[in-house]
Amino acid sequence: MATREGNDTKVVLSETDIPTKWYNIQADLKTPAPPVLHPGTGQPIGPQDLAPLFPMGLIKQEVSQERWLEIPDEVRDVLRLWRPSPLYRARRLEKALGTPARIYYKYEGVSPAGSHKPNTAVAQVYYNKQEGVARIATETGAGQWGSALAMACQFFGLQCKVYMVKVSYQQKPYRRIMMETWGAQVVASPSTDTQAGKKVLEADPDSPGSLGIAISEAVEDAATRDDTKYSLGSVLNHVLLHQTVIGLEAKKQLEKADDEAEIVIGCAGGGSNFAGLAFPFVGDKLTGKNKTIRAIAVEPTACPSLTKGKYVYDFGDTVGLTPLVKMYTLGHTFVPAPLHAGGLRYHGMAPLVCKLYEEKYIEAVAVPQVAAFEAAVRFARSEGIIPAPESAHAIRVVIDEAKKCTEAGRGKAILFNLSGHGHFDLSAYEAFLTGKLQDYEYPSAKVEEALRHLPKVKA
Amino acid sequence: MATREGNDTKVVLSETDIPTKWYNIQADLKTPAPPVLHPGTGQPIGPQDLAPLFPMGLIKQEVSQERWLEIPDEVRDVLRLWRPSPLYRARRLEKALGTPARIYYKYEGVSPAGSHKPNTAVAQVYYNKQEGVARIATETGAGQWGSALAMACQFFGLQCKVYMVKVSYQQKPYRRIMMETWGAQVVASPSTDTQAGKKVLEADPDSPGSLGIAISEAVEDAATRDDTKYSLGSVLNHVLLHQTVIGLEAKKQLEKADDEAEIVIGCAGGGSNFAGLAFPFVGDKLTGKNKTIRAIAVEPTACPSLTKGKYVYDFGDTVGLTPLVKMYTLGHTFVPAPLHAGGLRYHGMAPLVCKLYEEKYIEAVAVPQVAAFEAAVRFARSEGIIPAPESAHAIRVVIDEAKKCTEAGRGKAILFNLSGHGHFDLSAYEAFLTGKLQDYEYPSAKVEEALRHLPKVKA
Repeated sequence: MATREGNDTKVVLSETDIPTKWYNIQADLKTPAPPVLHPGTGQPIGPQDLAPLFPMGLIKQEVSQERWLEIPDEVRDVLRLWRPSPLYRARRLEKALGTPARIYYKYEGVSPAGSHKPNTAVAQVYYNKQEGVARIATETGAGQWGSALAMACQFFGLQCKVYMVKVSYQQKPYRRIMMETWGAQVVASPSTDTQAGKKVLEADPDSPGSLGIAISEAVEDAATRDDTKYSLGSVLNHVLLHQTVIGLEAKKQLEKADDEAEIVIGCAGGGSNFAGLAFPFVGDKLTGKNKTIRAIAVEPTACPSLTKGKYVYDFGDTVGLTPLVKMYTLGHTFVPAPLHAGGLRYHGMAPLVCKLYEEKYIEAVAVPQVAAFEAAVRFARSEGIIPAPESAHAIRVVIDEAKKCTEAGRGKAILFNLSGHGHFDLSAYEAFLTGKLQDYEYPSAKVEEALRHLPKVKA
Repeated sequence: MATREGNDTKVVLSETDIPTKWYNIQADLKTPAPPVLHPGTGQPIGPQDLAPLFPMGLIKQEVSQERWLEIPDEVRDVLRLWRPSPLYRARRLEKALGTPARIYYKYEGVSPAGSHKPNTAVAQVYYNKQEGVARIATETGAGQWGSALAMACQFFGLQCKVYMVKVSYQQKPYRRIMMETWGAQVVASPSTDTQAGKKVLEADPDSPGSLGIAISEAVEDAATRDDTKYSLGSVLNHVLLHQTVIGLEAKKQLEKADDEAEIVIGCAGGGSNFAGLAFPFVGDKLTGKNKTIRAIAVEPTACPSLTKGKYVYDFGDTVGLTPLVKMYTLGHTFVPAPLHAGGLRYHGMAPLVCKLYEEKYIEAVAVPQVAAFEAAVRFARSEGIIPAPESAHAIRVVIDEAKKCTEAGRGKAILFNLSGHGHFDLSAYEAFLTGKLQDYEYPSAKVEEALRHLPKVKA
């Protein structure tokens, strides 16, 4: 095994090491997370308010204060197909950088859908099936989440309907075909399948669509059909919970490697891959077991909700349909620049990540996309794997922290989440390699404008 | 671990289990393989004849009669990045088929390039570097081989020039970008970089290119530059040798699973992934250690060299530049139909595979592509992974053999090579899912015609 001093590259675990419980960081918070509010009344919502959209099994997890939640055997039996994911020691990258840092990465691209997303998709579909749901509707942008849910639905025999943002549907056919190969029905959004979609098309028949519109369609679909629920791939507490298998495995693997993480790094769009890796480590900080560990969420300069946003109540979606959640937000009407890291183009951030950031248990850094791709290419040329554009942002900060180790003359153990591969994002690499990739400045005027449209919350 | 009776899905090994020696089946042949002949003299060629194109380290392996050849530590250190590859028990597929068969697959798609090709690319680049070669030229069709070699050259600090068939260069930009991300220089072939390319372009400025033309360009490049050698991704003995890590690992994994393969299956284009998995098992048949094991090479109906070709001396390439090798061939001038499984569009077959087929140590089956994709979609919906179109052909025969087990009421252990993933072949899946994928009959008239153009070999 990859001991700290040996020359092994990977720490692999056997399937008996797949966690049997998810770690719920809510149990270890100093004060409870702020409640989710009803947009009309300004009052905290209850489980029944969410029942039209989610099965009760997931709603219970959303609000649970228990530290450990059992992972059902049926879920673990699917996770076995790619879990435990390998923990790599990036020896070749360390050498290329000439750093004394010990760099580790958890590789989530080994799932058949190519990212960490199936970890929660499988759990979500399972709880839906448990409660007799026959069909799930969701939205997807570039397709990472849609393909994870399509695969999970196929495994449990549920139908899956994906509203895919039209511009992605047209420009990125491969993710669509992937979903169809796993049996999902995919339509370009706005579609004529919903009232919301029809309304948009009436106003603009050539609408390219947006994630906000696609959410509206999926929510309407789920709310108007008895056999259907809705499913979300990030942000919510239960989604972050399901992703903690990543960090729990990583801890066990580092122990096997006779090492201990000092810095934990993940990119953060909605926050689920960052939280999945970091929460089990941050939990040790909350409980005082490890007071020095640093966890860094990395976001793009063009969409820096944690580092530039306001910690207030806002809508989770662009259109303003969801309950109000307290989070760092750039304003729900803010439309981020067309970054290649589509998964990081979100105006807000998972409420649990925000609370930990507000209380200084975690840090955040924003990086520009050209610097992220420079880091990703360096990574690919050392380690082989071509990272997803989202993960590239994490790698930028890993390399920066490794350089600080070089300057300080002391090696630290840095752990990061390589949340997915970049096989469907190679056009972004081409733009970088040919010098055509552009950076986007922090859009302060647009953010200021969007922050003016925050919902008013009744006291 | 995945015991025969347990419920684990994968058998994983640690890096110390990566084989330390390649298995050379030439040592166990009953009679030596027929010699390679000089096309001009008809006489067996010697190592010096190959020296302009290949480093002596590889030429020695090509003709070695030693059973076990040491894998250099520097090669194993790169293989660690993805090896040992997992052995899966396809429990979900077995259940979907309702078969008593125990289906295992070795998954080679875990390499960063997405197929088994890097197993030999790394070894080839290593031996080139050992002998001071600074640059390697090769050809690639759809890009599997080119991307494996690009990555390996990057790891060892060699330059890499890839002549990519122009029609693929234009239609499949992702594989090209992958090669460029790993630092290779890629040109559309025919190119103006070689005399061979210029000649083709003079006659037809719009030539779409072909693998034959690209080979001519790469060979000319290597032969006319002192710093450059040529590299081939299949067919040759040393390539098959390097791939035996697949079968050697699989044997160890099956032992850990307390099972023994009764049928071993791989798709066969040039023959290297089939040989890589099967030769360690076929070796047991040659030496009498296991008399009953069956090894089945699966080829496409549209290009069935083993099942329909002639066992004669022919050129390895389309143009007729290479030495003459004795193999099952459809004639070097035969141009296969535009199958989606580009890796199976080869007029001949690795000479070692052919000799074993001639002597009935292995079997061969040809399957049509629609049936192959039907099997691949069934596989993806059970196991998650979307197979490469080449691997889909193997899966077709796996499912057929599993059905025979069902009919006979006796479960056998079937092992196959899932040689790569289909992330860059999703348009083929779309064609299948929309009913537009067509089958190609066996082109008997075209083969008859091509067989009339076999080279005359002096007695």
